[in-house]
Amino acid sequence: MTAQHRIEEQLTDEVIASFARTPDPRLKELMEALTRHLHAFIRETRLTEAEWTRAIEFLTAAGHITDDKRQEFILLSDVLGASMQTIAVNNEAYENATEATVFGPFFVEESPLVGVGGDIAGGATGTPCWVSGTVRDTSGNPVPNARIEVWEADEDGFYDVQYADSRVAGRGHLFSGEDGGFAFWCTTPTPYPIPHDGPVGALLDAVDRSPVRAAHLHFMVSAQDFRTLVTHIFVEGDPQLEIGDSVFGVKESLIKRFEEQPAGAPTPDGRALGDKPWARSRFDIVLAPSQ
Amino acid sequence: MTAQHRIEEQLTDEVIASFARTPDPRLKELMEALTRHLHAFIRETRLTEAEWTRAIEFLTAAGHITDDKRQEFILLSDVLGASMQTIAVNNEAYENATEATVFGPFFVEESPLVGVGGDIAGGATGTPCWVSGTVRDTSGNPVPNARIEVWEADEDGFYDVQYADSRVAGRGHLFSGEDGGFAFWCTTPTPYPIPHDGPVGALLDAVDRSPVRAAHLHFMVSAQDFRTLVTHIFVEGDPQLEIGDSVFGVKESLIKRFEEQPAGAPTPDGRALGDKPWARSRFDIVLAPSQ
Ligand SMILES: [Fe+2]
Ligand SMILES: [Fe+2]
Repeated sequence: MTAQHRIEEQLTDEVIASFARTPDPRLKELMEALTRHLHAFIRETRLTEAEWTRAIEFLTAAGHITDDKRQEFILLSDVLGASMQTIAVNNEAYENATEATVFGPFFVEESPLVGVGGDIAGGATGTPCWVSGTVRDTSGNPVPNARIEVWEADEDGFYDVQYADSRVAGRGHLFSGEDGGFAFWCTTPTPYPIPHDGPVGALLDAVDRSPVRAAHLHFMVSAQDFRTLVTHIFVEGDPQLEIGDSVFGVKESLIKRFEEQPAGAPTPDGRALGDKPWARSRFDIVLAPSQ
Repeated sequence: MTAQHRIEEQLTDEVIASFARTPDPRLKELMEALTRHLHAFIRETRLTEAEWTRAIEFLTAAGHITDDKRQEFILLSDVLGASMQTIAVNNEAYENATEATVFGPFFVEESPLVGVGGDIAGGATGTPCWVSGTVRDTSGNPVPNARIEVWEADEDGFYDVQYADSRVAGRGHLFSGEDGGFAFWCTTPTPYPIPHDGPVGALLDAVDRSPVRAAHLHFMVSAQDFRTLVTHIFVEGDPQLEIGDSVFGVKESLIKRFEEQPAGAPTPDGRALGDKPWARSRFDIVLAPSQ
């Protein structure tokens, strides 16, 4: 071991030792592990002072673009796969339970309640799409009264909260029925870029990566005694599935068929759509028990 | 290897692969290493979603408190020893060259020029202190005309830029003479806390660590053909040296005697200090060659 190697290692040890008196053992564990990995990153890469400065500037810019509606740190976590890895470690595969994926930055509390068969589009543009399915436990028993939150971008790739007005569109919640069944109208999801006019977008540019997410519809499903499921469904045939989802959210099991229906084809609930084509998809949800 | 282990590992591999087309090979290397360490941290600690959210909130708060004069991300890097580790890998021990330490967030460009023997205090409160020394190369030859930047907090522990007014105090620069010699008046450094009314301060509280830095006087010394030296000198006998410097900046070789002089003791340059005691210290600087 060279003298230089020893200097660097001793510094890491000294920082780890500084957390010795942390009252909360979990916080102590997290700070020690963070120190180990952060120092190993710096030592392995021989990070230059200019690169360190660039990192500070990047974090500063991310902080300054972040506000109530724009969350650049979540975007950063997303494009580094850190969000998806956190999801993975917290939602370990459980029998046949539906797989989880990233939450994303666009969920909003207190979305409108729609009845079964209601429309969550709220005026958002896009092809009307009927989504139906069931919520069941891993043994196949229906889970009634599960709260199903759904949210999505409009045809132009924007969530309601990304508009300057205060529209509420492309989001809503409903409850599964006695038989675990649910159904609602929304719009067929289309690919959209994550916000890429900030530092995270500049990073994606610099590494020649697409900011586009594979088309998806967000779900959050919660019910007493079950692990809350945060997931998406993706659209079979979407070319972005080949290019790569910018936040690594895709799981094979979450890719669903969205069947296009010609204008005039009768709708499941008799809704009149005039001369508009529409689509339908099915998503059967299986919840894991809460621990 | 369990199925869960494989899922997590595959995700990390997928993220690393996403950087494959990065045109700049160094950026590619950095992003791959960052991904490896970040994912290993999440997997090893089994980071919970609540902890992930807390981390996002922490970074957001750090971003929002950061402005032109307050740099919470540098403070964060400092208290995690990341700044000091970056200094260590970029300033490898070189023969008898003076050791480097952290830059800190309070350097300001275009400090006042003072002549040799001038006063950098600019009205800052504290015990007047005469610091003299030489700038030499590792063979002992004088380095004339080296630019010596000096900055420090006042007796109350604040740098000029931390005050709401636009004072310039406790900072200045001078040049070494033909014989490499330099001397200036400043104030004897005293321990001060890093700014701890923000998220980094809350973190230090939670881990039961002192925000206080060992008393120090900052130096940045640059000269043609030499590696720029960023360092401090510390005050022998300062109790904070035992408690621990909050940013891990202390090196044994940088601890210097500050000799207290009674009021009325003749000053090196004949300056009249009335009934004030004063102090003197010596700092002989050795610069490593650039490259
Ligand atoms: Fe989304
Ligand atoms: Fe300082």
